[in-house]
Order: sequence, then C-alpha cells, then structure tokens
Amino acid sequence: MRIVLASGSPRRRELMEQIGIRTEVMPSSVEERVTSDIPDQVVLELSGQKAEDVAEKTEGRDVLVIGADTVVASEGRILGKPGSVAEAGEMIASLAGKCHQVYTGVTLIYRDPSGEMRRKAFAERTDVYVYPMDEEEIRGYAGCGEPMDKAGAYGIQGRFAAYVEKIDGDYNNVVGLPVGRLYQEIKELTGGWNA
Amino acid sequence: MRIVLASGSPRRRELMEQIGIRTEVMPSSVEERVTSDIPDQVVLELSGQKAEDVAEKTEGRDVLVIGADTVVASEGRILGKPGSVAEAGEMIASLAGKCHQVYTGVTLIYRDPSGEMRRKAFAERTDVYVYPMDEEEIRGYAGCGEPMDKAGAYGIQGRFAAYVEKIDGDYNNVVGLPVGRLYQEIKELTGGWNA
Repeated sequence: MRIVLASGSPRRRELMEQIGIRTEVMPSSVEERVTSDIPDQVVLELSGQKAEDVAEKTEGRDVLVIGADTVVASEGRILGKPGSVAEAGEMIASLAGKCHQVYTGVTLIYRDPSGEMRRKAFAERTDVYVYPMDEEEIRGYAGCGEPMDKAGAYGIQGRFAAYVEKIDGDYNNVVGLPVGRLYQEIKELTGGWNA
Repeated sequence: MRIVLASGSPRRRELMEQIGIRTEVMPSSVEERVTSDIPDQVVLELSGQKAEDVAEKTEGRDVLVIGADTVVASEGRILGKPGSVAEAGEMIASLAGKCHQVYTGVTLIYRDPSGEMRRKAFAERTDVYVYPMDEEEIRGYAGCGEPMDKAGAYGIQGRFAAYVEKIDGDYNNVVGLPVGRLYQEIKELTGGWNA
C-alpha cells in the first residue's frame, strides 16, 4: 500500500516514521475554506479539504491519502500561528496557569485494490495543563524561536515541555498527528493492514 | 549553577537539553538497595541512592545533583527490563488493552553558594492506556529491538506510540524524566534560578 501524507509538516512525517510507516509527502495546495468556528469541526473540514485535494491528484490503487489539521483552543477561542514575537507572548500568557485543548482532525481517503473509494474522518482532542509562568519566562519563551511556526505559539516537543504539568490524551496529537488512533483507523479502513 | 545528572541514560540527558538545561553526566555506581515493593517508594529510594552517591563525589558549591529512577507497574506489579525477547513479549501482552502506571522518582541534592545542603524528592505518576494488540503485533514489537533496554519493555517515544491510546500525566515522565515538575522543583529549591 502507498501512503501519501497531504501535509508539508516535517513533524507529521517524523511521527509516521517513528511508528515505522513510510509515507510520501505531497502537501495540498487547496485554499482553505472554513464554515465553522468550533475547533473539532474546523479541523475536520480542513483535513478533509487537504485529503480530497491530494487524492484527486493521486493515481493508482491501494493508495491511502492522509490529511491532517491541528488547532489549539483556549476557552473556546482558536489560536493560530503567531504573527510576531509580541503575539506569541500574548498567546503564551493566555495559556499559562490553565488547561487548554489541542484538536487534530484527520481524514483518510483510501482507493482499495479494486478501485473502490473508502473514507474515514475523526477529530482527536488532548487537554494540556500549563504551569503558571512569570513574565520573564513568557518573554524568554516567546522570543526563543520555537513559537513562530506553531499553532498556539508553542512546541510541546521543545523547550515548552518545562511548562507542561500534564496532558490528558494522546501526546502526539499535540505534536500534530494522533498516531495511536491513526494506526487503529488505518488498520480498520484498509482491512487488517499491518505496519 | 552546575547541574549534574546522576544517570547514564541518554534519554534523560536529551530531555534536559530539550528544555534548554545543560547537564554534566556522572552515572552513580551505587549498589541498589530496595526495601519496598510499592512503585513510588521504590523509585524514591533508588533516586535517592543515586543522587547521594554522586553528591558525595562532587566538589564545590552552587551544585545541583539530580538522581532519577523509573519503573513501570501493571496491576501493582513492577515490570523491570526484559531479559529476552520472549520476556519482552510477555510484558507487552500484559500491558495490551489495559491501563498501567509509570513512576519516576527524582531526588535533588543542592549545595548552595554558602555550602548549605538542601534536598527535595518527589515521585511523579503517569497513567498509560494501551490499545488491544493481536499476537502478530505483540511478536513484531517484542522483536523490533526497542524493548530490551527499557523498563516495561516499551519505548513510548518509539514505535510503541502506535499502540498508545492516551496518557494521563506528564509524557516525559514515561520517557524517563518529568521535566515539567522537575523544572518547577529546581526553581523552588535553588531560589528562583531561571534556565
């Protein structure tokens, strides 16, 4: 089976490699259209658009396309990628001392060996509890370079781990891909495939 | 401040580096003596023995020694490192489809700038929920090389991530060092030190 990751994120590809699954990377070029502001609906929509775009461009049978999108939500408000160090600092300050949610939506589109299309989508949620941070810590982290390409302005797999008290859910979902659930769903959708 | 890690584990050193803390590595050579079979008591005892051994060999002031020990416990029973692939398979089979606990005990021994000794110890617990696994998956994972040097016969930071449904607690505690709590405790013990 060919597995195509409809995402340019090096972190997602690394997570697939971590669990022993080789993927081709083919980032979607679709223009994102969002009709909801509810976090799990947003990530389902966007992962679906990415997967559909790449599936349309992919030839052959026994091919699985994976689309994924991750957002950070704090008190119901979605935090995107920060546009500046100052904005990163504001986002970090809004997360410090509280629990927030990370949602990754995943859409799988599988063209099986007979040419039939199968589809499955799910959104996985992880709660992240952040320790209180003082101003120096917030400023130091906001300016350390890690926040700028990341939703919610932090990388749990980087320096921000010092400020994470605990999580409830899949850790890799926070990094960008819930590989535990994803592995189970791939097995089910493709009928017993084994990495 | 000098920070000395009384552990030869490359994973623990990498976790400290991840949060931006440089450590010297000085593995303890102490013979481990355990008087309890209660997981959090065991890791507290062993982390204390490691930290004391290395603190005795360490000169100077403003020096922090960190001892750590991690165990996996399933239904109250402590799982050590597997002695063979067959034993790794038995351990993995005992974890599949269930929740188990990972405990890391940490002992901090700090000789402050005035020469006074301060000490703090804590044990951190993380619950890990593992998906059901079939025989082929158990055999495949047991033989993949990852289990042999790891308590409980798995590495959450490796291929085993495919079988982890969720965790409740600090992810890095499962890898071997609860860097979130540890960072907070170092700040408190040393009086406001900042990485």
